[in-house]
Amino acid sequence: MFELAESDPELSKEEAGPLEDELRTALLKAQYARLQQKNCALLIVIAGIDGAGKGATVCMLNEWMDARHIHTLAFDPPSASEQGRPWLWRYWKNLPAKGKTGIVFGSWYRPLLQEAARKKPRQKRLLALSRAVREFESTLAQNGVQVVKLWYHLSRQAQSDRTEKLLSDPDTAWQVRPEDLKVKKKFPRLRDAGALAISLTHEAHAPWAVIPAADTQMREISTGQVILAALRKRRIAPRQPISQADTATLESPAPSLDNLDYSARLGEDEYDKLLPEWQGRLARLVRHKKFAQTPVVLVFEGQDAAGKGGTIRRITHALDPRQFRAIPISAPSTEELTRPYLWRFWRDLPAPGHISIFDRSWYGRVLVERVEKYATETEWQRAYEEINQFESQLLASGTVVLKFWLAISKEEQLERFRAREDSPFKSFKITPEDWRNRKQWDAYTKATNDMFKYTSTQACPWHVVSANDKPHARVAVLQQVVKALENALDLD
Amino acid sequence: MFELAESDPELSKEEAGPLEDELRTALLKAQYARLQQKNCALLIVIAGIDGAGKGATVCMLNEWMDARHIHTLAFDPPSASEQGRPWLWRYWKNLPAKGKTGIVFGSWYRPLLQEAARKKPRQKRLLALSRAVREFESTLAQNGVQVVKLWYHLSRQAQSDRTEKLLSDPDTAWQVRPEDLKVKKKFPRLRDAGALAISLTHEAHAPWAVIPAADTQMREISTGQVILAALRKRRIAPRQPISQADTATLESPAPSLDNLDYSARLGEDEYDKLLPEWQGRLARLVRHKKFAQTPVVLVFEGQDAAGKGGTIRRITHALDPRQFRAIPISAPSTEELTRPYLWRFWRDLPAPGHISIFDRSWYGRVLVERVEKYATETEWQRAYEEINQFESQLLASGTVVLKFWLAISKEEQLERFRAREDSPFKSFKITPEDWRNRKQWDAYTKATNDMFKYTSTQACPWHVVSANDKPHARVAVLQQVVKALENALDLD
Repeated sequence: MFELAESDPELSKEEAGPLEDELRTALLKAQYARLQQKNCALLIVIAGIDGAGKGATVCMLNEWMDARHIHTLAFDPPSASEQGRPWLWRYWKNLPAKGKTGIVFGSWYRPLLQEAARKKPRQKRLLALSRAVREFESTLAQNGVQVVKLWYHLSRQAQSDRTEKLLSDPDTAWQVRPEDLKVKKKFPRLRDAGALAISLTHEAHAPWAVIPAADTQMREISTGQVILAALRKRRIAPRQPISQADTATLESPAPSLDNLDYSARLGEDEYDKLLPEWQGRLARLVRHKKFAQTPVVLVFEGQDAAGKGGTIRRITHALDPRQFRAIPISAPSTEELTRPYLWRFWRDLPAPGHISIFDRSWYGRVLVERVEKYATETEWQRAYEEINQFESQLLASGTVVLKFWLAISKEEQLERFRAREDSPFKSFKITPEDWRNRKQWDAYTKATNDMFKYTSTQACPWHVVSANDKPHARVAVLQQVVKALENALDLD
Repeated sequence: MFELAESDPELSKEEAGPLEDELRTALLKAQYARLQQKNCALLIVIAGIDGAGKGATVCMLNEWMDARHIHTLAFDPPSASEQGRPWLWRYWKNLPAKGKTGIVFGSWYRPLLQEAARKKPRQKRLLALSRAVREFESTLAQNGVQVVKLWYHLSRQAQSDRTEKLLSDPDTAWQVRPEDLKVKKKFPRLRDAGALAISLTHEAHAPWAVIPAADTQMREISTGQVILAALRKRRIAPRQPISQADTATLESPAPSLDNLDYSARLGEDEYDKLLPEWQGRLARLVRHKKFAQTPVVLVFEGQDAAGKGGTIRRITHALDPRQFRAIPISAPSTEELTRPYLWRFWRDLPAPGHISIFDRSWYGRVLVERVEKYATETEWQRAYEEINQFESQLLASGTVVLKFWLAISKEEQLERFRAREDSPFKSFKITPEDWRNRKQWDAYTKATNDMFKYTSTQACPWHVVSANDKPHARVAVLQQVVKALENALDLD
């Protein structure tokens, strides 16, 4: 894999000159074509042996291309607020818009490379990390973000020669970082780690290119050529995602809206007794010191007028306003449309000790977007797996995730629609769109049942709550939330 | 100020019922009218005596109004990453879009109230904090964000009765926070602190309303009425901002583009010697441990083709990609247009140990927006003061701010435009817009000279660099940056 790069090939300035002129013109053209089409973002991952000129490459790309449309995404080790989130959070959050280019430095390969460079890499962790990387890149590729990965490489001798040369002049010595000095000793291990990471994550839709880095001209021209090819390439669709049985064990049998029992009722007296009781229990829980370490995500879906808002308010009543954010999800904004559809949900993930309450959610992809044909069949079919992966990553980071479907019958919905129309301050909740959606009742029911079937996993099941009786639904949800938290905090 | 509220007025459920129905309908109507007009955001600041039902008010507003268009902005004490920024940073960052409503909890009044509640408030700090608050609210009011502030108040006896009552039932005891218990003892001091803060910051464009909070119905109805009035009100323009001589001492004489000397030149040999020397010096500085505490903002302005990009790259060459972000400023996005024009710059402020390099900046308001008439005369006239305040806040937070104007002559620009057109990979830099701007040379010169006159302060002066000779300009800028940093880090 590294034979050519370790032969330290060179390119004379005379050879490189005309190549560079040609490349820069072509790169700019390709960059502008991308910007105009706006159908795909490009992420360039910069990795490789320390002291191989990775930093200089960032400068070069900003000079060769139009820097106004390039984002350098350089990541320090994770900050405190980043450590409390899933580890891919910061990469998700910073995805460039379609048409734009991002140069990623300190990428999602860092943990994988660190593990691979250990004396005895832990196989299980290696596989888990490389799998997470592959899932991430596959989701990106399928959602309008092209990824190309460059590995800067040179021979052990050339690396140490380069480092020594820089050190010999006080005006260039600063270019040598402490890591660069350690390479000589650890070279074989770092090389093998790179080779392993590359072989575990090289995919047609997210390929690696090894860049010979000993000679500046060779490094620059090779970099430019690889990026030009990437910019010009038609997007390669990834293979079908890894089957979901692989990542998440589905609940069997899955819940269903068919033959649901809507009879549960709670009398007024009972409600007045139970509601404050469970709110109090929730309130004490979220004020418990253990809770400060726990991020919580609550997802509310359900038919129109199922009572999501009222149920959410019964929960937030027990919370400190500083602890939660209620996030209403409606049609995506222009900014959101230029990113993968999961992007906006990643942005709203809670820090430890905080609760994000989604009033509708990423499940819109397989519900309204499917029924109204905003997403293609390929897109929403694929989304089940993408969602399962997303939720697995949340769970893996220690986030408590609860998904509720508030279910009402078709007759009950009609009654509520009419009651809303009659109320001066509830009529705003009922629009022609609600009536249109109602006509699609069966299509939504089918989409919902499919959603249960493919995304109700053992680790993250759907809680279907009969909501024809609001008091019953509110208390039932509160109880589930409390029990899940007690369980997560080890307090039950 | 608090007589009425401390008489703990009540409203029976019978009286409140019809009022509530009417209010909710009117609130929703007013909210939707706002959403449609999209010319103004509304920020509702919730403050007052602890244990007066502020948290319950947030719940109520989310129920009475359409929660999908309300953002609850509840702030914990500042996090580590927030502490490294100007203290208003987090409030700026979270401003809602025009048309939307934000409920602010843990607002920018916290430090002022804390100071005012000390046994012996420090007069200087009190005045500085209240001045910062007034400047902030005035800038908001003038840029499409209406602010209304509610102070929840009740008598000492009613506060402690309410707290005791909640405590007596285990299901409501959690509603009492540790702060609420301390109020009884400190009541007079907290009341006086509130009265002082209110009298220092009550403005027609950002008024305070005192809400009687002892009785739930009275609290709810009063809250709704105040917010309804605010939603319905035509925006009140603030008075002329406090004159700038007040906030920042202007440089005298201010720099000017007239009669500028463009003769400075640097020979090739000298450049090849000086450039790495100063880059090395900069590189060592930003790797110094003291630098980790310092945020840096570099602003680059100048005529088209003055060489901003090339100069910036000579600086970034000495930096670690993780340390800096180069931020190219072009026309604002849809998202940015719905916020005050300074919003997007606040978002990009650096953390300590980081450098934000603005390639064009907030000065666009008084340059391109003035000349091209994108801003009204009132808007750009006002901007001088808003910018001075913004930069004062940056300096006050310990940020190093350097502003460079790269100046070229009209003849030199013509030569560069032509050379760019002839270069295959530079022609992208030259567009019809550049030629159009060039026709407005005199108008831009006038705008630039005015900008120097009104924003070159002693604390944050403009550095005008003759840039007809690129090597000279690059080294001159590098030297200024290095010297300013050495000075800030106390290393010179």
